[in-house]
Amino acid sequence: MADFAAKASDLARRVDGNLVGDDCHIDSMSTLDKAGVGQLSFLSNAKYQKQLPGTQADVVLVTEEFVDLVPNSAIVVADPYLAFAKLSQLFDWRSPIVPGIASSAQIDSSADIDPTAQIAKGAIVGAQVKVAADAYVGPGVVIGEGAIVGESTRLEANVTLYAGVTVGKRCIIHSGAVIGADGFGFAHDGQGWVKIAQAGSVILGDDVEVGSNTTIDRGALSDTLIANGVKLDNQIQIAHNVEIGESTAIAGCTAIAGSTRIGSHCTIAGMSGVTGHLDIADRTHITAMTLVSKSIKESGAYSSGTGVEPHAQWKRNVVRFRQLDDLSQRVKNLEKLVKSLLNKA
Amino acid sequence: MADFAAKASDLARRVDGNLVGDDCHIDSMSTLDKAGVGQLSFLSNAKYQKQLPGTQADVVLVTEEFVDLVPNSAIVVADPYLAFAKLSQLFDWRSPIVPGIASSAQIDSSADIDPTAQIAKGAIVGAQVKVAADAYVGPGVVIGEGAIVGESTRLEANVTLYAGVTVGKRCIIHSGAVIGADGFGFAHDGQGWVKIAQAGSVILGDDVEVGSNTTIDRGALSDTLIANGVKLDNQIQIAHNVEIGESTAIAGCTAIAGSTRIGSHCTIAGMSGVTGHLDIADRTHITAMTLVSKSIKESGAYSSGTGVEPHAQWKRNVVRFRQLDDLSQRVKNLEKLVKSLLNKA
Amino acid sequence: MADFAAKASDLARRVDGNLVGDDCHIDSMSTLDKAGVGQLSFLSNAKYQKQLPGTQADVVLVTEEFVDLVPNSAIVVADPYLAFAKLSQLFDWRSPIVPGIASSAQIDSSADIDPTAQIAKGAIVGAQVKVAADAYVGPGVVIGEGAIVGESTRLEANVTLYAGVTVGKRCIIHSGAVIGADGFGFAHDGQGWVKIAQAGSVILGDDVEVGSNTTIDRGALSDTLIANGVKLDNQIQIAHNVEIGESTAIAGCTAIAGSTRIGSHCTIAGMSGVTGHLDIADRTHITAMTLVSKSIKESGAYSSGTGVEPHAQWKRNVVRFRQLDDLSQRVKNLEKLVKSLLNKA
Repeated sequence: MADFAAKASDLARRVDGNLVGDDCHIDSMSTLDKAGVGQLSFLSNAKYQKQLPGTQADVVLVTEEFVDLVPNSAIVVADPYLAFAKLSQLFDWRSPIVPGIASSAQIDSSADIDPTAQIAKGAIVGAQVKVAADAYVGPGVVIGEGAIVGESTRLEANVTLYAGVTVGKRCIIHSGAVIGADGFGFAHDGQGWVKIAQAGSVILGDDVEVGSNTTIDRGALSDTLIANGVKLDNQIQIAHNVEIGESTAIAGCTAIAGSTRIGSHCTIAGMSGVTGHLDIADRTHITAMTLVSKSIKESGAYSSGTGVEPHAQWKRNVVRFRQLDDLSQRVKNLEKLVKSLLNKA
Repeated sequence: MADFAAKASDLARRVDGNLVGDDCHIDSMSTLDKAGVGQLSFLSNAKYQKQLPGTQADVVLVTEEFVDLVPNSAIVVADPYLAFAKLSQLFDWRSPIVPGIASSAQIDSSADIDPTAQIAKGAIVGAQVKVAADAYVGPGVVIGEGAIVGESTRLEANVTLYAGVTVGKRCIIHSGAVIGADGFGFAHDGQGWVKIAQAGSVILGDDVEVGSNTTIDRGALSDTLIANGVKLDNQIQIAHNVEIGESTAIAGCTAIAGSTRIGSHCTIAGMSGVTGHLDIADRTHITAMTLVSKSIKESGAYSSGTGVEPHAQWKRNVVRFRQLDDLSQRVKNLEKLVKSLLNKA
Repeated sequence: MADFAAKASDLARRVDGNLVGDDCHIDSMSTLDKAGVGQLSFLSNAKYQKQLPGTQADVVLVTEEFVDLVPNSAIVVADPYLAFAKLSQLFDWRSPIVPGIASSAQIDSSADIDPTAQIAKGAIVGAQVKVAADAYVGPGVVIGEGAIVGESTRLEANVTLYAGVTVGKRCIIHSGAVIGADGFGFAHDGQGWVKIAQAGSVILGDDVEVGSNTTIDRGALSDTLIANGVKLDNQIQIAHNVEIGESTAIAGCTAIAGSTRIGSHCTIAGMSGVTGHLDIADRTHITAMTLVSKSIKESGAYSSGTGVEPHAQWKRNVVRFRQLDDLSQRVKNLEKLVKSLLNKA
């Protein structure tokens, strides 16, 4: 795992920040309450302001407003959380890649591997695959025939790319992700299901992150498309011919059914489901465990479901839900009767 | 990836269709609006009828009714979608299998591999495993002791079969699927959980498809059973001792809890959950994200949950859901009062 | 797969039970209705009492109360289900481990592998990894730099441990599980997402079971923590910095969002979702497919959602759900009007 140290003044320069206080060496990051010597922390949420005066962090990223409360050194920036994100990458756990092909990797002779790329132990790379400069193909990864891995992209251990899949630049695909398996398409012949071969592929843009055990299916006749900057958490299921717009972020265990188009700059919280053949507008925000079963034309926040409650109380309410249409009719009827009584009174 | 071309007249013969117009060579398939030279398309949904006169497809699969609208050649069939499904398989992305065992595959000496089967690079095959004729064991696949892989079955890259699992003929198991892991069974000893060894196995029938990262657990005392023709999409969880009937199709991310029996010819949409020890009738259809918590005795369509709505509106309704039983009581009370008023009036 | 036989009297001794009837050899277990010669069964649920007199099992685990109904031999214990669980482990399908490192495994020279551990074919073990005594590292497993695998722990085929992950003693991690991938953390720079490096790790306690294709992400600044005795089913998603307390059991496909703390001795049924930054009390029980979106302070059972119903009926009720707040206002209004009418009457 990578060891790294930097001077606070260097860090300040990287985020266009202003170092207030003594310069020092920083080798890791921590939260305000747990940070100690050699550590950088940050204040981005007013909730943690009370931890600021007592922090042992050598340096804290803060806005101008809070600089006087910082006990040691401060780096003053406009957006401490964003500055923290940028600097965090210096302290990443990943070791720098080591160009070359491990002797236990199995590379088809027709594959085109850039000499600056790393192919780790036990990776299996198929015919006519292209792996671009500075890419990392982790241990146990399998890349099918004709797939393309872009510059500086990382495929972590045990990722599977099916034949013909394209992954853009600077992507991270986490372990167990499967990209390009057959979409779920069948015709019924009256007795059972006849498979529809899935002749499309999957194209991932640049700067896409795909979480562990997420699956993205190949298209039926055209391709499944994931635009630049899309971030997918773990165990997400993207069906065939889905299109996801730029910089949309989707949290864990969400599923998007076939041929649905998700706009750009959307956020979809965890365990939500979007049914097939829908259009979801740009900048739509879906809360956790929502079922989206119709297109959304206006950006905004959307939800479905009911809230958690004690089981005994829930059981009673659930019974009433089944009677809700009936209840509604009864209220309508009461309104009529009361109106007639009021008229008489 | 496979290259393939066929004469339109051959294609017509394969689907008992009637070629109307010139014969020609077809090398791929596309949608009506995107098809071009050398491509086959189809019209199965009236929604796309308006695209028919303008299509550039060299050949279109249509019913008799629409043959006059086809600009180039037509193949007239009773069910264009079914015919498309059948023909699509000729254009599959998979290369034909290459019989033999890759030198980097690790095969136990007691395994019985048919000489017409292909064992790809890095596959690991345990003791007493049987791999039948024309089967394909992909790169990185692990097959545990005593498992059986049927004729013409494909295990795509990085599939795991645990010891003793049986997979029938002509199945496709997609990457990352895990078949035969321990069912989730524990007894509580007052302090914590004591594992119950899972002594059963998993038996998959013929023509079963299992999606990527789907998991099917081994049974506790008897076997988990997946009947012929069952189609499972990605990331489905099938718990121990579940039985799924013939030709049932289940969409992505659905979970079936332990010992539940799903009938034959059912469809279960994505992200649904079926709790344990239930019986679901043949030809039951479950809509997306439904929780099935009791047995279903009559075939038909079933649902649960609420529909998507703007978040602010949803928040108000969710509060009311928690008060629904109370609301119902209040309506009942109003009905009594109004009745008494009506009696007096 | 393991073959095993034991004398009934030995089995009785292992569970502090009392053998009533003849001693005999037992080589497997089964249910009362299916058991035959050489098989052990058990009665723990009154529902199956009627199967007891007719069972062919050579030995049945029962409480004192039912001993007279057992046709062959009985082992009398206080808790037959618990005794069954304990004895079941003798009949596990797993073969005993074979100490040593397979020649096709790739072990970094700086890794420290106990000589009693087994490293199976094709496993890839990174720098400075420690594998303790009697541990099993299955085929195709990848263990990242500096990870630790505790005594007697099993990593089944194709498991991935990222760098720095710690797994305790006597754990079982099932195939396809991914432990230590990056948590889903990003800051927004006004245009798109900036990755926050995930500098924490994952620590699993002792006796933890992790189901197939379950994912547990590494923490952002501190570690994700899974306490002793936690049992996780398949396809569960545990986000960064989650903490799960001792002996909590979680069923398949549930997701826990970032920084949430789940207490000890909880049970969470399948496909539930717990949103981020919550605290869930010890001994909380969540039913299937519940969305927990606020902290739970008192132990007890909790639920959300609605129950399954015929689709046509559900459609009507779902419309009414969207009008629920309005309906509630209308009832309130009716109550006022009726009150005024009653006052006048």
